[in-house]
Amino acid sequence: MPHRHGQGHRMGSKYPPSMRGCLPLWILMLQVALIVIFFFFTSFDTSSQDPKKLMGNFRVLQDVTIMAALGFGFLNSSLRRYGWSSVAFNLFLLALGVQWAVLMDGFLEWSFRKKVVIKLSSIKLATMSAMSVLISAGAVLGKANLLQLTAMALVEVTVFVTMRMIDRQYLSMDNHVSMMHIHVFATYFGLMVAWFLSRSLNERVTEEKNQTTKSSSLFTMLGTLFLWIFWPSFNSALLDIPRERRNAVFNTYYAVASSAVTAISMSALARPQGKINMTHIHNAVLAGGVAVGPSCHLITSPWLAMLLGFMAGLISIGGALCLPEYFNRVLGIHDTCGMHYSFGLPGLLGGIAYILLIIYEVTWTKQSMISYQLFTGTGTLSLAVASGLIAGVLTGLVLNLTICKGPHAAKYFDDQAFWEFPHLAIGF
Amino acid sequence: MPHRHGQGHRMGSKYPPSMRGCLPLWILMLQVALIVIFFFFTSFDTSSQDPKKLMGNFRVLQDVTIMAALGFGFLNSSLRRYGWSSVAFNLFLLALGVQWAVLMDGFLEWSFRKKVVIKLSSIKLATMSAMSVLISAGAVLGKANLLQLTAMALVEVTVFVTMRMIDRQYLSMDNHVSMMHIHVFATYFGLMVAWFLSRSLNERVTEEKNQTTKSSSLFTMLGTLFLWIFWPSFNSALLDIPRERRNAVFNTYYAVASSAVTAISMSALARPQGKINMTHIHNAVLAGGVAVGPSCHLITSPWLAMLLGFMAGLISIGGALCLPEYFNRVLGIHDTCGMHYSFGLPGLLGGIAYILLIIYEVTWTKQSMISYQLFTGTGTLSLAVASGLIAGVLTGLVLNLTICKGPHAAKYFDDQAFWEFPHLAIGF
Amino acid sequence: MPHRHGQGHRMGSKYPPSMRGCLPLWILMLQVALIVIFFFFTSFDTSSQDPKKLMGNFRVLQDVTIMAALGFGFLNSSLRRYGWSSVAFNLFLLALGVQWAVLMDGFLEWSFRKKVVIKLSSIKLATMSAMSVLISAGAVLGKANLLQLTAMALVEVTVFVTMRMIDRQYLSMDNHVSMMHIHVFATYFGLMVAWFLSRSLNERVTEEKNQTTKSSSLFTMLGTLFLWIFWPSFNSALLDIPRERRNAVFNTYYAVASSAVTAISMSALARPQGKINMTHIHNAVLAGGVAVGPSCHLITSPWLAMLLGFMAGLISIGGALCLPEYFNRVLGIHDTCGMHYSFGLPGLLGGIAYILLIIYEVTWTKQSMISYQLFTGTGTLSLAVASGLIAGVLTGLVLNLTICKGPHAAKYFDDQAFWEFPHLAIGF
Repeated sequence: MPHRHGQGHRMGSKYPPSMRGCLPLWILMLQVALIVIFFFFTSFDTSSQDPKKLMGNFRVLQDVTIMAALGFGFLNSSLRRYGWSSVAFNLFLLALGVQWAVLMDGFLEWSFRKKVVIKLSSIKLATMSAMSVLISAGAVLGKANLLQLTAMALVEVTVFVTMRMIDRQYLSMDNHVSMMHIHVFATYFGLMVAWFLSRSLNERVTEEKNQTTKSSSLFTMLGTLFLWIFWPSFNSALLDIPRERRNAVFNTYYAVASSAVTAISMSALARPQGKINMTHIHNAVLAGGVAVGPSCHLITSPWLAMLLGFMAGLISIGGALCLPEYFNRVLGIHDTCGMHYSFGLPGLLGGIAYILLIIYEVTWTKQSMISYQLFTGTGTLSLAVASGLIAGVLTGLVLNLTICKGPHAAKYFDDQAFWEFPHLAIGF
Repeated sequence: MPHRHGQGHRMGSKYPPSMRGCLPLWILMLQVALIVIFFFFTSFDTSSQDPKKLMGNFRVLQDVTIMAALGFGFLNSSLRRYGWSSVAFNLFLLALGVQWAVLMDGFLEWSFRKKVVIKLSSIKLATMSAMSVLISAGAVLGKANLLQLTAMALVEVTVFVTMRMIDRQYLSMDNHVSMMHIHVFATYFGLMVAWFLSRSLNERVTEEKNQTTKSSSLFTMLGTLFLWIFWPSFNSALLDIPRERRNAVFNTYYAVASSAVTAISMSALARPQGKINMTHIHNAVLAGGVAVGPSCHLITSPWLAMLLGFMAGLISIGGALCLPEYFNRVLGIHDTCGMHYSFGLPGLLGGIAYILLIIYEVTWTKQSMISYQLFTGTGTLSLAVASGLIAGVLTGLVLNLTICKGPHAAKYFDDQAFWEFPHLAIGF
Repeated sequence: MPHRHGQGHRMGSKYPPSMRGCLPLWILMLQVALIVIFFFFTSFDTSSQDPKKLMGNFRVLQDVTIMAALGFGFLNSSLRRYGWSSVAFNLFLLALGVQWAVLMDGFLEWSFRKKVVIKLSSIKLATMSAMSVLISAGAVLGKANLLQLTAMALVEVTVFVTMRMIDRQYLSMDNHVSMMHIHVFATYFGLMVAWFLSRSLNERVTEEKNQTTKSSSLFTMLGTLFLWIFWPSFNSALLDIPRERRNAVFNTYYAVASSAVTAISMSALARPQGKINMTHIHNAVLAGGVAVGPSCHLITSPWLAMLLGFMAGLISIGGALCLPEYFNRVLGIHDTCGMHYSFGLPGLLGGIAYILLIIYEVTWTKQSMISYQLFTGTGTLSLAVASGLIAGVLTGLVLNLTICKGPHAAKYFDDQAFWEFPHLAIGF
């Protein structure tokens, strides 16, 4: 394979080497700019706080970071020739996205005070906002270079934080529910960006390079398991009332358990030979956690969470079977890691389940605010979908400009375009 | 290898494809049945609880889930061609076992109330009970299909929960000690089931397929390390008194440290060339945690825990060297991942150590209850062994019935029987 | 490859097989000796303690253990033929080092009481001390056998614990700062030992065997991510005042985020083709955490931590590019996993940053103790470097004695010298 290695050197980009070498400089300057902005506009929280609450917050932050760095990092690592980029770019996007999200959150919330005060809870919030980039990256991965991903991260975090601010201020939606629409927002954002980047995609090359390997599939499973285990932490991270928090943990736990069983048996059921598809499993076992997200603090009996997990498992496997044929191929979208069926569809199910649950609760308690509740519920969900789609289209347009031109389509899904390899790259 | 792939299609099972496709339907219906049972018989705990205790319980639950999903998942992934099944079936059994164990625990304990109340602590207990299935699966893995494993999980959890109920009610044994006999129970249950399933095993095929690979061995090491790190959490999970809990953490930590050093040096010592056997190491470094389990809350000085870890390491490596030749081959049992020497023998050592420690303590404090204590101690241990053996034999008989016939022996230990592979399965 | 396997049997060591088989016996006897010492000289802490503080300590201990066992274990696993040894020897050194460090800490601190009292916090401290061995092992790995590593561990832990005692008693330096010099101490200790062991190294063989593989590089990334995630826990583990602890968490979080972005873009910038070097990334993303260590509790605004992370990223990547050519080759040191640029240089930067910060703070608050503060600050850092260098040279001399002669240089970096492989070692 020294031959392909040589190609990598020659064909990795359309730029002359001198120009290409300058691109990372922009990222380095961005980091310097961030340091300068932090110097002028931020300070740490100096109020004395309950040390136990502090440690509690720290634990949740740690769980969320594990999900972001390990979970999403390895979830997308199953591409045969793209494992390095998946994991390392994921870490890069997380580290950049957190810094940016803290600033954005601060500027939108405390705009009149002199400095943005950074607390542990704002880092936690920022990490969760940065996860939207990691989800979108799952659809874009392999088709964009580092500079394009950086631009995408900055735009997406800004839009997502603004969207949540609108939810909070104009739709009086609480923090938790608007955060739980991250899956829907990020999926449709990522799909739109992927749409623009997959124009020149050659199907044969893609298929060949998209193959998974035995060992990389176990790495993906590792990512899946981290997400599976820590999903109850994610769904309960923004809830402060102990009762709601406990409900969120309970329900998420039951939903992911139920969707794991459902996904594995459904995947076997869908094929005449009864064989299970590993790629579907990676994502579908998590569908329950996604679907139960927005309503996890309201559900008061396990069967409802299990039912949501069951339906999410069915929908996710169904989507995995139908979407590539009837949606992606028709529209010409290449969804690298199947984000549409793993986060998009279960997220929509979760949004609808939340609205139904609110209606049921309002009807049952005979309150007359039903129309307003219905309005805010549907408004939040539609806003998430709409802002995802629109911002995704705009970002996709920008990324296609010549200024930040991505790798040639023939080099898509190939670590060789981005990474130095040892001289003999055989045997991996 | 397209040839073998084709074989997989033809020989994966003795059923005609139409029939085979129906099997997963049973599992899907089981999940629906579980949702219905939860609908009628369970409700969440709505009592207001100390939020700090809640979070403490949640952390322990998380640790135990990490051990179950990541630890046991990857511990058994070293088979050359069976990595996917090990990890994914482990997740499946965990997700199913937890749901079932919560129900069983509830029905046996709160049978007269109207609904089973689910608390965080009952999910923790259920996860630990479900671990018995994961341990047994280590002996059975590669010789059973998903339906057989499902049946095994349901039977094993039921028997284990019942056994612990008997321990508690008739032998007045505390929750912690009876849970710590999980290793002995699950090992002998698994060995008996494996005995029935390894009847038609062709030794040459097994040996060829059982080979480990360099990279999968690192995955196994990952599982081992997760178990090694979180074992103190497991051993202290059911202890409520802070002093006992602290002792359990201390002693387990020292026992696993001591058994890690012992196992690695013993493995090198056992061979004339001084080479270490990786497969033995995977399991033997954990033997200390198993052996110190039942008595970890009683031991008050580190040397005793270290001694137990030392002895467990010796016994485990000794078992790894002798058992395959003098026990498994003679009886015709194929113990896939060496559960007998990694969990069975150290578990027996732990049970005996507990009895000796009780006797010593009773003698030293000049209490006259020695005979009763001796009776309950030996009773619990014997009950664990006996119920494991008997339930294992019965389960093995049932699994051999034609209704849930497993894969043909030639397809044992082969992912190809269960998983869809990309068209060209070369290069992994 | 059966041929090489045969070679392994013949050439694995210079000893006749009978002699070679005796070496592990020494380690086994060391473990027995440790048990005896613990029997005579230690007891558990029996004071009643706040259970919440206990659990807090336990969580921190767990985080530190995850870093030591999983983080360092997999960080060094990228060598093509040395993955097994890296992970397993790391666990061995940790398990041995912790037991030894608890004893050393105890003997130096509570020397006049009758027994050393072991608390959870002393196990936490011991685990952190044992990490010095794991860092040094990164430079030595592949060039020493298990007995040499054992001897190194015992000496290094003893010297490191003594050094910290001197820091505490004669330089009145607090526990946290002297622990944070672990990186500098351990790196120069390891480099000196590696210097003595790399005398007979054949460069061609080394290069060939040092190659990384695609899959093992992902394992290394796993180790890196674990360290990256839990570094805030490490830097705040010894701080008791909640405000300092919070600052440490904040600053470390920002420093590692900033160094991750910097390292990835710098690595791309350094090459004309703009390609990133994976090996550099593994270590450089952590440089921020190392550099911010000694001063992380004093910094009160995020930009300073980010700046330190930025500079650490630059220095680490710069070191990775220059050191192998201009330092290692000139002096004849073979630094297996690049510990010099990943822990040594950022550690020096951190030590200098701490001194500057103290000077700035003292000047600003108009205190007149500036000369004393300057003295203790520089004294601690110089002591760490000096004791690392001197102890490393002495250890290197001892390890080169015939009594514990290592593997033949031709067998360096080869798992085959230490591990039993299946009969056909092809295909991994």
